[in-house]
Amino acid sequence: MAGSGVDVKLVGMIESPFVVRAMIALNLKRVQYEFLEEKFGCKSDLLVRSNPVYKKMPVLIHQGRPICESMIIVEYLDQVWPGDHDHATGTNSILPSTPYQAAIARFWAHYIDDKWLPKLIEVMKGETEEAKAEAAKQVISGLQLLEEVFEQCSDGKAFFGGDTIGYLDIALGCFITWIKATEKISGFKLLQQELTPLLVAWAQCFCLHVAVKDVMPETDRLVEHAKRIRAWRIEAKATENNAAAASTTDT
Amino acid sequence: MAGSGVDVKLVGMIESPFVVRAMIALNLKRVQYEFLEEKFGCKSDLLVRSNPVYKKMPVLIHQGRPICESMIIVEYLDQVWPGDHDHATGTNSILPSTPYQAAIARFWAHYIDDKWLPKLIEVMKGETEEAKAEAAKQVISGLQLLEEVFEQCSDGKAFFGGDTIGYLDIALGCFITWIKATEKISGFKLLQQELTPLLVAWAQCFCLHVAVKDVMPETDRLVEHAKRIRAWRIEAKATENNAAAASTTDT
Repeated sequence: MAGSGVDVKLVGMIESPFVVRAMIALNLKRVQYEFLEEKFGCKSDLLVRSNPVYKKMPVLIHQGRPICESMIIVEYLDQVWPGDHDHATGTNSILPSTPYQAAIARFWAHYIDDKWLPKLIEVMKGETEEAKAEAAKQVISGLQLLEEVFEQCSDGKAFFGGDTIGYLDIALGCFITWIKATEKISGFKLLQQELTPLLVAWAQCFCLHVAVKDVMPETDRLVEHAKRIRAWRIEAKATENNAAAASTTDT
Repeated sequence: MAGSGVDVKLVGMIESPFVVRAMIALNLKRVQYEFLEEKFGCKSDLLVRSNPVYKKMPVLIHQGRPICESMIIVEYLDQVWPGDHDHATGTNSILPSTPYQAAIARFWAHYIDDKWLPKLIEVMKGETEEAKAEAAKQVISGLQLLEEVFEQCSDGKAFFGGDTIGYLDIALGCFITWIKATEKISGFKLLQQELTPLLVAWAQCFCLHVAVKDVMPETDRLVEHAKRIRAWRIEAKATENNAAAASTTDT
């Protein structure tokens, strides 16, 4: 077990796909860590102090020093624990070992967070049914693009990283159960066997991987969480409107 | 000279700070390259084909293979040409060599593009004078934050990277003349001796560095470029409005 006796803490909530990224990387590297769970709707002092710019989870705290942003945490763990993370395949690193493949993995990880994820969120949060349907279309075409990337990167193997989970697997894989939760809530089928058969098979392999299966939240838990977020947003908006109305009355 | 006889091309425009990032990294690594200059307002087939997802510059083409996104290009160059880029100091890499310092540099580079840059753009493009003034305030407080980061990273030396230019120097440094151009256009003073003395001194050193001085565009050239962008946007909007009016007439 790597990291035995080392001082590693992870601040976050299991419902956050970004926190799941860090958890998977910690498991791949077999690093022992303490999970400091955040409460919904109430950021801990530790979180705010450790990530004062964004105040967002996850934060990895290693030997007392905070590291923020999920994919930066993944790279950090990969560098600090460069040893074998998969003895069966002898794979050493989460990031591909060649500079070109590493650049490609970084590019698509950026695409996922920058372009694709906002559409997935829109499927759930869109203002109208039309907006949701349009977002669902874009999520699906994004997955089709990623299907092509998978074909190029995986070389006929189970993962983007080849024989075992790599950087891009973590970047996209953390959203698998969120895709399922979004399908359940919205009624749109997003990850489809007919359109993206390779990604469907990949998603199954990914969720069964030993580094993933115990940290990936259940779909129903995420559905409940999404409902909680929605209720919290409506309440926050009502409070805001009431405050605005009160301030108008005051003047 | 590293990269002699190798097939390296850079697609972009000198007015783009993101292209300047790639140029500085190429110079630091002393890699010979061919600059394929894009024309304003007209994306080349090569650019669109090489970066079909974003259709944005810069694109580095190395041995026929495109690499996109400026900071990904910087990391790629750093990995492909890991040798000394500064013989005087013996510095080997653009990214800090310790995982923690690398994570910190990545975090702040992300902050610059994600949080700080949109405010700099807003100073120029804001809809009202109030919006511009508010954005200018936020640009300045972002610089004050980066002043603190500089103090921590530079260890009393000239650059974020210590004795020579590193990852975070490139991430922020590419905007120095854009800051000056924005000051000239908007009338707001952004990089101020009284508030951020370390960054003022750093900016001077950075612009004089041998890897930077010949690729950093003149402020006046950027002022002219900003005017061209503005005129082009107004024209595009008018065309759009005319098309909308025509389509309303048609129905």
